[in-house]
Amino acid sequence: MSRVIRLAVIPGDGIGPEVIAEALKVLDAVVAADPSGVTVEKTHFSLGAARFLETGDVLTDADLASIASHDAILLGAVGGVPGDPRLKDANIERGLLLKLRFSLDHYVNLRPTTIYPGVTSPLSNPGEVDFVVVREGTEGPYVGNGGVIRAGTPHEIANEVSVNTAYGVERVVRFAFELAASRPRKKLTLVHKTNVLVFSGSLWQRTVTAVAADYPDVAVDYLHVDAATIFFVTNPAKFDTIVTDNLFGDILTDLAGAISGGIGLAASGNINPSGAFPSMFEPVHGSAPDIAGQQIADPTAAILSVALLLDQQGMAEAATRVRAAVTTDLADRAARVAAATADSPSADVDAPTARTTAA
Amino acid sequence: MSRVIRLAVIPGDGIGPEVIAEALKVLDAVVAADPSGVTVEKTHFSLGAARFLETGDVLTDADLASIASHDAILLGAVGGVPGDPRLKDANIERGLLLKLRFSLDHYVNLRPTTIYPGVTSPLSNPGEVDFVVVREGTEGPYVGNGGVIRAGTPHEIANEVSVNTAYGVERVVRFAFELAASRPRKKLTLVHKTNVLVFSGSLWQRTVTAVAADYPDVAVDYLHVDAATIFFVTNPAKFDTIVTDNLFGDILTDLAGAISGGIGLAASGNINPSGAFPSMFEPVHGSAPDIAGQQIADPTAAILSVALLLDQQGMAEAATRVRAAVTTDLADRAARVAAATADSPSADVDAPTARTTAA
Ligand SMILES: CC(C)[C@H](C(=O)O)[C@@H](O)C(=O)O
Ligand SMILES: CC(C)[C@H](C(=O)O)[C@@H](O)C(=O)O
Repeated sequence: MSRVIRLAVIPGDGIGPEVIAEALKVLDAVVAADPSGVTVEKTHFSLGAARFLETGDVLTDADLASIASHDAILLGAVGGVPGDPRLKDANIERGLLLKLRFSLDHYVNLRPTTIYPGVTSPLSNPGEVDFVVVREGTEGPYVGNGGVIRAGTPHEIANEVSVNTAYGVERVVRFAFELAASRPRKKLTLVHKTNVLVFSGSLWQRTVTAVAADYPDVAVDYLHVDAATIFFVTNPAKFDTIVTDNLFGDILTDLAGAISGGIGLAASGNINPSGAFPSMFEPVHGSAPDIAGQQIADPTAAILSVALLLDQQGMAEAATRVRAAVTTDLADRAARVAAATADSPSADVDAPTARTTAA
Repeated sequence: MSRVIRLAVIPGDGIGPEVIAEALKVLDAVVAADPSGVTVEKTHFSLGAARFLETGDVLTDADLASIASHDAILLGAVGGVPGDPRLKDANIERGLLLKLRFSLDHYVNLRPTTIYPGVTSPLSNPGEVDFVVVREGTEGPYVGNGGVIRAGTPHEIANEVSVNTAYGVERVVRFAFELAASRPRKKLTLVHKTNVLVFSGSLWQRTVTAVAADYPDVAVDYLHVDAATIFFVTNPAKFDTIVTDNLFGDILTDLAGAISGGIGLAASGNINPSGAFPSMFEPVHGSAPDIAGQQIADPTAAILSVALLLDQQGMAEAATRVRAAVTTDLADRAARVAAATADSPSADVDAPTARTTAA
């Protein structure tokens, strides 16, 4: 009997459903053509701002249990119109997206960056960019550990605690070393701010040094997060594998998306490498309610997220076919833009970066 | 009797003394030519990694008291050779630089960004870039409030606490509004990560909303820090005044330096607007021990820091003369590079960005 992948699909809000519809077409096509005979069984979950406005629920325990019983998750984007007063008290990001990442122990947030042929980078000379950010997904300043006293008074104090554990740091650092060892350049860069965040910085630094002993082939270096952003724009080709904490990873990967031609192209996997919980794949972009429903959102990031999903499901060949199709499509689009521009310099054809807003 | 500015000079390590020597020449020249008759009286402080290696002291109470008795501080850069084992237990950054910022209540860290004519940005189309980041300087994740339990064991936990107070946030936000109101575009962008750092984010957001009522002419908007990095590379011209916390400001201003042609050109002021303590002016770059002593470090950032110092000392005209001289110099250098390149495309003349390492 052939394997069935039970896929939880969370299209979400705004452009989420549009890009997921396209991504599922690609998934269906590539799986149907795969010699393995694998099939995909989809369950749709209606979650996000729209669902909250209808029912008052962000993510119920029953939703979570049901999602957790699947083999993998594909998510579009969640979040309503910014400033919508009805959403004031619903933090969809924390209550849904982060809740899923934390509950399903997605300790690796994998975010690859390449500049595809034909795609225009805002950098005049980016070089050969091909790196992966391994962002920790379950700790750091994202834990929601903090609080407020004397709220609303001149004596208010609001604290946020970044929690970092040897357990949590070591497992993501090991994953990053494995990944670095499997890549041709075998290079790992730790990004942190060890000169200021001395407690967590020391833990990250010592962990990388300790784990490095098991990977003598991997060259290791270190950059402060501020310096890393400089190299992202002056010499992004220097990076291979980056390992970093949850917040620095959030910042660096949006910047990475921007320099590689737009977060309309940036895919991500929230991975639980142990397999105890399903991993979740999602474009880095947000729900972009301003352009939703117009069928102008670029589904590439969602499609590339499908490739990451196929990788993680052990279907590397199918993943490669998806990436090849994306490569061809982006090059075709660039050629069409070039041709149209030659005819009429102001032609407005769909350039290979979409208008998507940052999440 | 004419006014005397008592200036504490901390040349520091690496390229610090070289760039400060040039900056002081500029300061002396512009002050001598100023009709106000102001004079500058300098006290040199030997502080930094070199001093630590000699004496074991990073910053004594006596140093601090003496520095605090001055009218202003000019600092080059501090920090030894990265990885020097003798510096392992001396955190020069925390023990000296941050100690000064915190002790002297430098709650405004002012970091302007412009692309000077002739300077090459790594962005192919940066547009008219002219913004200022108002970075909070005395709170946030920089407070050093954190700790470790079970250090060195598999059960280690390392926490960092970001502390944010209504008092601290409001005063820097008010400064930012004043600044925004004085600039032609009158635009203020709050950068934070309110969807994740909900406690501190709420305090920042509410404070900006409240203070905005006193500045009806200033247009206010908000960006998450990750989204802000995207706009820094896709449309930096959109920014006017940015107000943000200590850590986000650290990251954004290195990125700002990079897109404007290198942190060899980026100046900063650590300002105590109340005047209770002397303000401190320093280039954003670090001590770059790898290029120290070769007289190849670009002193422009230190010279532009002198301009900020003059501004703060009420000598706006002298500050303008310094900036005009820098503008001319950078354009001259660009012209020389262009001429030399026309002769021989591989000529290695000093391009208007220097090799300086990030602090
Ligand atoms: C929406 C937000 C909570 C999220 C994050 O900060 O992780 C997003 O920015 C991302 O990078 O996936
Ligand atoms: C050296 C370091 C402590 C400092 C900081 O993080 O503030 C530097 O990066 C800066 O931006 O001035």
